[in-house]
Amino acid sequence: MGRWEPGARERLREAALELFTERGFEQTMVADIAQRAGVTARTFFRYFADKREVLFDGSADLAKQVQNVVETMPPTASALDVVAAVLDAVAQLAGDDRDRARARQAVITANTDLRERELIKQAALTAALTEVLRQRGIGNIEASLAAETGSAVFRVAFNQWGDATENRDLRDVIRETLTRLRILAAAE
Amino acid sequence: MGRWEPGARERLREAALELFTERGFEQTMVADIAQRAGVTARTFFRYFADKREVLFDGSADLAKQVQNVVETMPPTASALDVVAAVLDAVAQLAGDDRDRARARQAVITANTDLRERELIKQAALTAALTEVLRQRGIGNIEASLAAETGSAVFRVAFNQWGDATENRDLRDVIRETLTRLRILAAAE
Repeated sequence: MGRWEPGARERLREAALELFTERGFEQTMVADIAQRAGVTARTFFRYFADKREVLFDGSADLAKQVQNVVETMPPTASALDVVAAVLDAVAQLAGDDRDRARARQAVITANTDLRERELIKQAALTAALTEVLRQRGIGNIEASLAAETGSAVFRVAFNQWGDATENRDLRDVIRETLTRLRILAAAE
Repeated sequence: MGRWEPGARERLREAALELFTERGFEQTMVADIAQRAGVTARTFFRYFADKREVLFDGSADLAKQVQNVVETMPPTASALDVVAAVLDAVAQLAGDDRDRARARQAVITANTDLRERELIKQAALTAALTEVLRQRGIGNIEASLAAETGSAVFRVAFNQWGDATENRDLRDVIRETLTRLRILAAAE
C-alpha cells in the first residue's frame, strides 16, 4: 500500500458517478475517474477492484450494519420486527443523499451488467440476513421468508422514494411500505 | 428456417441439462448438445440463441401464462389473491419435474453468469406481474409490493420444495408459504 490519501475514496466515488452520468458507464475509464478525483490510477485500485465496484462501495458496510442491528435486538423480537429494525438501519445508509442515489440508479438501470451486479448484491444481502435470523434460532423457512419480504419492501420503498417529486425520509417511506404489506397480507 | 424436427426442442433441453450436469456448463459446447440430441448445431440455433438460453426456455411461456391467469380473475379479487392465483399457475409449469428442477438449479448455482441471468429473469417476471396488476387498476405501490411479495414467496417455496427429502406438490408448498407470510405479517 502506498501513502494514505485523505478523502480519496470519497472523491473517487463522486468523480465516478459524475463521469458515468456525463459520458455513460462504458465510455468512462478508470484513468478518467482517477484524474478527476486528483489521484493516480494506482490509488484508484487501492480502493476498488474495478470501475463497477465504485458504484457498489458500501455493500460490506451494509452487511456489517445488518449484523450489528440484529445483535442488539431482544431475543423476543419476531422475525419481521428484526427485519423492520434492519430496514431502519439500511435507510440511514442508503437514504442520506437522494440526488446521489437517483444518479447512481440511473447509471445502473442503463447498463445490463450493472443491473445484474446489483441483483447479485441484493441477493447476497438477503442471504446474509437470512443467516443472521437463523442464528437467532428462527426456523429456516421463516428466516428466509422474512428476509426476502424485507428485501421486497426495501426495493418497492426505495424506488418510490427515488421517483417521488418531494424528497421524503427514506426510513418513513420504508415504514409505510411495511405497513402496506401488513395490510395487503391481512386482507383475505 | 430449415425443416421442422419433431421433439428437437425437448431433446435439446434434456441433452443440455445432462451435459451441464456431467461436464459443467463452461465445458459443454453447443455442438456437444446438438450431437447428443441427434440434431445439427444449426438446428440448435433455430430454437435457442445460446447455450444459456436452453436453461431459461419457458420464461416466455411463463410470462404469457401469468397474463392469462390475471385476465381470468374477477375484478373484485385483491392484489394478493391475484398473485396467489398466478403462483398456482407458475407451480404447474415449474413444478412438474422435481429431479429436473433440482439438476437445473445445481447447474445455475455453480455458475455466476447463470445466477445473474436467473435473477434478471426473475426481476423481469416481477416487473411483468406488477404491470398486469396495474392494468387492473391496482395502484403503483400496491401492485409492485404484491408482485415482489409473490416473487419472494415463490423463491422461498421453490428452494424448500427442491431441498426437501420428500417430493411434495410445489403448489401446496407455495400455498403454505403464502399462509406463513400472512401469519408473519400479521404478528405485531
